[in-house]
This record gives sequence, C-alpha cells and structure tokens, in this order.
Amino acid sequence: MADRKPVFLVIGAGAGIGGHVAKRFAEGGYHVVPARRSDEEGLQKLVDQISDVGGEASGRLLDAAEDGSIEDLIEQVERDIGPIECALYNLGAQIGNRTLANTPRKAFELGWRLGTLGLFRLASALTPHMVERGFGTILVTSATAAVRGNTGQHSHAAAMGGRRMLCQTLNAEFASQGIHIAHIVVDGSVDAPDTLGRLLGDKFEAYKASKGDNGVIDPAALAETYWHLHSQPKNCWTHEIDIRPWTDVPWWNDNPIAAVDR
Amino acid sequence: MADRKPVFLVIGAGAGIGGHVAKRFAEGGYHVVPARRSDEEGLQKLVDQISDVGGEASGRLLDAAEDGSIEDLIEQVERDIGPIECALYNLGAQIGNRTLANTPRKAFELGWRLGTLGLFRLASALTPHMVERGFGTILVTSATAAVRGNTGQHSHAAAMGGRRMLCQTLNAEFASQGIHIAHIVVDGSVDAPDTLGRLLGDKFEAYKASKGDNGVIDPAALAETYWHLHSQPKNCWTHEIDIRPWTDVPWWNDNPIAAVDR
Amino acid sequence: MADRKPVFLVIGAGAGIGGHVAKRFAEGGYHVVPARRSDEEGLQKLVDQISDVGGEASGRLLDAAEDGSIEDLIEQVERDIGPIECALYNLGAQIGNRTLANTPRKAFELGWRLGTLGLFRLASALTPHMVERGFGTILVTSATAAVRGNTGQHSHAAAMGGRRMLCQTLNAEFASQGIHIAHIVVDGSVDAPDTLGRLLGDKFEAYKASKGDNGVIDPAALAETYWHLHSQPKNCWTHEIDIRPWTDVPWWNDNPIAAVDR
Amino acid sequence: MADRKPVFLVIGAGAGIGGHVAKRFAEGGYHVVPARRSDEEGLQKLVDQISDVGGEASGRLLDAAEDGSIEDLIEQVERDIGPIECALYNLGAQIGNRTLANTPRKAFELGWRLGTLGLFRLASALTPHMVERGFGTILVTSATAAVRGNTGQHSHAAAMGGRRMLCQTLNAEFASQGIHIAHIVVDGSVDAPDTLGRLLGDKFEAYKASKGDNGVIDPAALAETYWHLHSQPKNCWTHEIDIRPWTDVPWWNDNPIAAVDR
Repeated sequence: MADRKPVFLVIGAGAGIGGHVAKRFAEGGYHVVPARRSDEEGLQKLVDQISDVGGEASGRLLDAAEDGSIEDLIEQVERDIGPIECALYNLGAQIGNRTLANTPRKAFELGWRLGTLGLFRLASALTPHMVERGFGTILVTSATAAVRGNTGQHSHAAAMGGRRMLCQTLNAEFASQGIHIAHIVVDGSVDAPDTLGRLLGDKFEAYKASKGDNGVIDPAALAETYWHLHSQPKNCWTHEIDIRPWTDVPWWNDNPIAAVDR
Repeated sequence: MADRKPVFLVIGAGAGIGGHVAKRFAEGGYHVVPARRSDEEGLQKLVDQISDVGGEASGRLLDAAEDGSIEDLIEQVERDIGPIECALYNLGAQIGNRTLANTPRKAFELGWRLGTLGLFRLASALTPHMVERGFGTILVTSATAAVRGNTGQHSHAAAMGGRRMLCQTLNAEFASQGIHIAHIVVDGSVDAPDTLGRLLGDKFEAYKASKGDNGVIDPAALAETYWHLHSQPKNCWTHEIDIRPWTDVPWWNDNPIAAVDR
Repeated sequence: MADRKPVFLVIGAGAGIGGHVAKRFAEGGYHVVPARRSDEEGLQKLVDQISDVGGEASGRLLDAAEDGSIEDLIEQVERDIGPIECALYNLGAQIGNRTLANTPRKAFELGWRLGTLGLFRLASALTPHMVERGFGTILVTSATAAVRGNTGQHSHAAAMGGRRMLCQTLNAEFASQGIHIAHIVVDGSVDAPDTLGRLLGDKFEAYKASKGDNGVIDPAALAETYWHLHSQPKNCWTHEIDIRPWTDVPWWNDNPIAAVDR
Repeated sequence: MADRKPVFLVIGAGAGIGGHVAKRFAEGGYHVVPARRSDEEGLQKLVDQISDVGGEASGRLLDAAEDGSIEDLIEQVERDIGPIECALYNLGAQIGNRTLANTPRKAFELGWRLGTLGLFRLASALTPHMVERGFGTILVTSATAAVRGNTGQHSHAAAMGGRRMLCQTLNAEFASQGIHIAHIVVDGSVDAPDTLGRLLGDKFEAYKASKGDNGVIDPAALAETYWHLHSQPKNCWTHEIDIRPWTDVPWWNDNPIAAVDR
C-alpha cells in the first residue's frame, strides 16, 4: 500500500465550501473523501467532477449527528483508503434568526450536536492516528457567530462559541504534537447553494445580485485559503483567520452612520 | 399579595459565590430561592443563616441537568413565592484538566448540559415573565474558559464558550425589553469549598495559603459586585466584567519571563 | 497632617463623567482635585457644588497635552493637599468622524497626546507614590474605539487602542504592587454637555430625546460604577468593564436586520 | 511606460520578514522597493539577491520616524518607478522589557512614531493613489502586543494597540474602495538577525537552538502567507491572521500547569 495517496476528509461536503475545498485538495494530490448527510446525486456529481480531471474521490453519505457515524467513517477510511492527513469539519448549524421563544430545546440541542459535539467526536477519533504519525491538519469552518452573539442566533452562536473554544483547546493539546488546527471565521455570505441558497430560496439570486461585483464569497477562491493554511510549514502556523468580501462591513464595525455618538 | 417580596433565584447555591450572592440579595430585601443539586444540610444551613439575620429564603434541591427541573422550579416560584426579579445562573462545568483521550463523550455532554443548555432553559422559562413585567436581571457566573481554551479544558471551554455567546444573544434580544443580562468572567480562584475545595481536597487550605494575602477571591466580596450589577439603572448597564485577585496574572498575560521574545 | 483626607484626582473634569465621579468621591470622603483645560467658571461651579454639600475640592486648570503639566500637578497635590489614593484619567480624544484625507497629522498626534501619552505621563508620575504606599487606584474612562476601529475614527481609535493596551501593561506591572487599574469601556452616549453636547451643538437635546427613556447614560449613575470599582477589595478586582444604555446595540452586534446571512 | 512592473514597497526591509517578503514579491513579478533606516550594505545585499535571480529592486535608506520621509518616498516611487500595488509596513517598535520607571517619555514617543504614526503617514500618502486606481494592498506586520499588554511592554503594546485599531479604521474606510488591509499578528519569534538577533546578541543562536525543530518562524515561510494574503481575490479578503511556530503556546493560553484553578 506504499502508493496510497494521503486522504483529505471533509464532513459537510455540499456544493459550497466543502465541495470546493475537496476539489482543491484533489488537485493537490489527495484522495478526497467527501461526506454529507443527504443528496446522493449531488455527492456523486462532486465525485465525478473530481474524477473527470484525474483526481481520486470516494463519497460517503453520513448522518454526522448520529453517535458513531463520524467515528466509523474515520476507521473505515484509515483502514481501507489511506491515512487522513487533513480533515475539514464544515458542518454549519445556522437555522436562521429566531426569537428565544421560537428556538425549541430540540433545535438548540441539534445546533450543539452539529456545531460543537461533532467536532469533538471527529477530533477524538482522528487525533490518535495523527499523533501516531506525528502530523496532520484539522481545518474548521466557522462563522461570525463564534465571536459575537447577534439577535436571533441563540442556537447558532452558542454552538459556534463552543466550537471556537474547542478549537483552542484542541490546538493547546495537539499543536506541539504536530497537528495543525485552524479556525476559519467566515464573516460574509458564501455562494453556497446547499446552505445559504436553501435558506434564501428563490431570493438567493436576487440577494447575490444585490451584493454587487465580488460581493459574495466564491467558495473556489476561499478554497485557496484553506489549501494555504494546510500548506503552512510547522514553524509558521495560523490558528485563526477571518474572511469576508471587500464590500462587507466586518462584524466588529457599525454601519458608518451609527458611529457618530461613540 | 401586594406585600410579596421580589424573588432572587440562584441555580447553583453552594457555599461559594452562589450562597454569598444569595445572602447579599436577602440583605437587600429579596426573598431568596437558593437551589442546588445535593447537600440538603448545606442548603438548610444557608437558609438558616439568611433567616437568622431577618431575611427570607426558601431552599430547593434540584437536578439542573434534568429536563423540566429548572422550568418547573421557575413556575412554582412565580406562582407560590413571588416574581423573580433577578436570577443567578451559577452552575460550573469544570471537571479538571483532562486530555482529549480522557474526556469521554458523556463528560463533554454533561459539560454542555450544565454549562450552556441549563442557561438556555432558564432563560426560556424566565424571560416571558420578565418581559411581561418589563424588567428583570439575569446574572451569569462565568470563567476564563469562556474567553480562551486552555490545555485539558475541552469540555469546560466548549461549554463556557457557548455560554458566553448565549449571554450575548440573550442580551441582544432582551436588553431593549428591560432585561439586564450580565456575563461575569471570574478569572481567578474563589474560596468556594463546594467546587474548588472539592476539586483540590486536602490541598485546598495549602493552596489558599500559597496564594498569600487576599490571593483568593472572597465570595462575600464578589457578591458586592453582583449586587452592584443588578443595581445599575437601565441607562447604564454592564454586560461583561472580569474579576481576579490582585496577585493573579490576568488570562491574557504571560508570565513576565516568557515575554522576552514577542 | 494626620487628618488630611485622601485625594481623588480627575484629569478631564467637565460636567459629564469627570464632574459626576468627582462628586461621588467627595461624598465618599475624598478631597477632590478636578482638573480641566478651560472653562474656569464651569470648574468653579463644580467645586462649589461639592463644597455646598460639605465636601472638599480644589479645582485646577491644566493643559494636559503640555509636557510637565500633569507631572507638576501630581507633585503639588501630593505635597500640598494629600496622598492621591485614586486618580481618574478621563480625557477624550474624539474629534468626530473624518476621512483619512481629512485627518491631519496634527490631529492624529493630538489624539495620541490626549488619548495615550497623557495616561502614560500620569502613571509615570503617580505610580511611584502609590507603590510606596502599597495601594492606589487608577480609573481610566475609555470608549468603544478602544476595542474596534470604525469608519472615520482613525485618530480616536488609534489613541484609544493604545490606551487600552497601556492599561493592560500598567495592570501587569502594578496590580501585584497593590495598584488597581480599571479600563472602563463606555459603549454608549453620555449626557455630557462639554463633550457630546459640544460635538452635537443645538442637536444635543433632540438627540437625547430621540434615544427615549433612559436612552443616554446618566453620568451620575455611571459614577456609582466607578465608585464601586474603586471599592472592590484587592482579592476581587475588575480590570475591564463595559457600559451602555439598555436600548443601545452593543458594539459587537449588528442591527438585527443585517444578521440574516451570517 | 506601459511595461512598468507594479511596485511592492516595504518599509522596514531587514534580513527578516521585510527582506523575505520582498524576495517573494520580486519572484511574483513585482519591482521591489525595500527601504530601511540604516545598514546600506545589508540593503544592497538584498537588492543583489533579488537581481541575481532576475528580479527588479531599488533599495532606499529612509528614516521613517522623520516627517516627510515616507511621504516623499511614495511620491518618488509612484513618479519614477511605478504604481505601488502593495505596500508592507514592517517597522517594529520592540525595545525589550522595561519597567514603567525605565521607559522614558522619549522612548514611549518613538514607539508610537514607528509603531502607529508611521502607518498613518504611509496610508495617508498611499491611499489616494490606490483609490484612484481602484485597488491595492497594505500589509501590516504586527505583534502579540497588539492584542494584549504584557509586563514591561508599555511602549510597544501602546504602539501596537494603536496600530491594530488603525488597521481596522483603514479597512473600514478603504476596503469598499478596493484596498485590502491585512493585520498580521506574529505571535512567535522570527529568525530575524536585524531585530530579535540584535536584541539577543550572542544568545541568539542558543535561543534558536533551545526552541528545537521548527521552533522559530522562518521568514521565508512566513513570506508565503503574506503573498497569499495579497493574492486573495476581493470577494475573499482576510483582515486579521495570527502566526506562530507549532511548539509555541499561543498568547491566550497559559502554561498548562497554571490552568488548574480556573
């Protein structure tokens, strides 16, 4: 098995960030394992796109919220495909803006399962392999909600705030064992049909048009930054980075007009 | 019922912060409802201490991790004792330093149940009453782990990071409805026999002695800050505050010696 | 001289925060030394208000931007009035919103002189006295611009960002020598005729009215928080705290409407 | 002049980050203008290294602390060499750890001149050109001291805290005009003979050895991250990023041992 390619695993491989980062790693020589909950057709399309340009990919359907699912996948991949050199945890937990009264306990728990617990489970299953090999990368897509809690974001912000702190504790334990953990704060809209697209429905195209030239993050462009983070040599690692379109107001800024009185 | 006192409810009323803040609110004219999971004797002692100096208190044993427990208590108190003007969520989720391999999924989940979900449940049950009255205060004891994730703190930091973001989303929704939410970052050791005391066991007294004069937070002193936060008029609210002993290095600082090369 | 009162010194003692904190400390038993750059009449009025209710105050006119001015005042007060137990650095550096092209180098420098350097000079002159006595408090009024840089705030944000980091280095060196340093992030409009009032001119009253009930920080209320910070015993010190009216959106939050896509 | 190469200007072009990023941009097709205060020989060496591999470079000696110096250089370069598409502000202001008593007012001011004011001057002179062209990048090397103030860092932290906020205000004004501003928090030691090397003297080699394999940032590796930031398309810009060696404890983490009581 000396000629097995190293593996790039992505949990949450839709047509947005997950799929595009998968393509980038395939292009970079990795055997890609994209996993997503549903849409077998979409998954196959991604695998085909990668194969068509000479890449290797093995798609998996996976309910990440279910105990054992991520753990089993990691064991299978390590055994049957190859060593996972890099994993991307790319599951979102955005359910739109809801008042507290309209945030059921169940939704709050699901937010945590996908937003926080899933990463804990991935890291628990994967780090022993990486530690044994002495290297590896875990990339974590995150959101503005990881650094501030906006109105209506009770479930999402609690989940992402937990995710961010977990990335820090993982980094604190594993960086010096050769594992690069990066927390990527996506602070803007992504041209992602499966998530934002689904949330906005028919308004998606109008929304993107309203943002103007380069007003929405192109996931193929963003994938270059993910690839760069993975490529950093170990004397020079980034743990946290933010990303947004040029025309977006960063999360910490007001609209200019509101600034007058502070 | 015109002469019912307003109620101060504390979830997590041990002999440290919870108990001392309870005494301070009793002294300030509140009927105090201290709730804790176990140690009926300790709970009764707190109630007696409050009664002995002319205060009012009604202790409750409560397993906050159990669904419905906080919700039922709030309904009972509102119905039978009086309007909850201020609640303190004071449950910790510290389980000591553990590697990821020694952090079972169950422990990680319990951390979230006590650290994050319990506050969500308290707020879900209590805010409708407070919104109807147009005012109220929710004080939330928090920890350094809410703002940075240290080695070994996977469960605690993920839970507290979620708690902090949840405090921000609660504030974002409820401040303008008259509800003051305050997130109190306790960045130092507290002279709390039921938590730190239990964690350190026989080493507790030696530990406190090693910290020197005023080297450990006195929960009675800290209670004054909690009371002050509750007393702020609504043109002048604090959402986040940090606290530590004078001799403790704040979480963002290195030991001086490490600073040479940055 | 055994019966000399301890002194509270305030640099920037207008009719807003500075003046009201001065009154609060006078009420608390301090000999107050309010200093301001101009408006001798306003200064005298403050001194009279304090004297009229039995307090002690000695007003000083002072150009804080001038080298030696703060230093000389501290020496005079220590020699002639009494030991400065608490000082409040309350100078603002807000010049309104200006594009970079409309921010002259001179304005940028003045921002730094008042916003950052003045505090460095105060601390340099005062800490030797406090260290010798083994205690003291330095309160520093700060602004949202210390934690995020908004459009048009080049001078103000650079000055306040420097101020915040300086408060941290002062705390790092002096807390363990008994000196309490507190950085107070005023994240809302204050009913301060000499600063915001001057900036807004005739629109000040309409502005305040537009903010609604309790929509602007009452400096007399805020003064209670300053007093509380000074009163914390040394096992229980706050270094940073934020303050805003209940109806103000905290600096880290968007308007709710903008939150949909993150 | 249609065939003039675009220019990369670096203020602070020693043998560490500045020089290596210069080489990377030369390799990427830019005419490089490295500027530094002294060491004409070192400057010529850098220019020669670039020329030897077919790149273009024009070195300049420059006292950045002197008013007009940066401004004049920018005008000369724009007129005589080519349009500055990217500038790197790479001046440090680290003077080692000093108590407040050992931090002269003059040193504090020089820290600000190099750490904060110089960037303001560069941006004031350069942004009009970039705005007219509708694009450009300003990269700003920064330090841990920009995000927390350690013991002994009064001058450096105040300067860097100001720098960070200034980067945010520049971004707030200029991002939507096509100018990418990036603030790079270098949170670890760099193998930089002219700065850390000079600070440590003969202990430099022993220091690097003590950090172990890949324990010090290699400026050539770091230069790839600078190049990547400049290469991000405008739908996908990073404003802030951190960097450190794998074995370094990030600024927000304690040594593991200190974590027990929080």
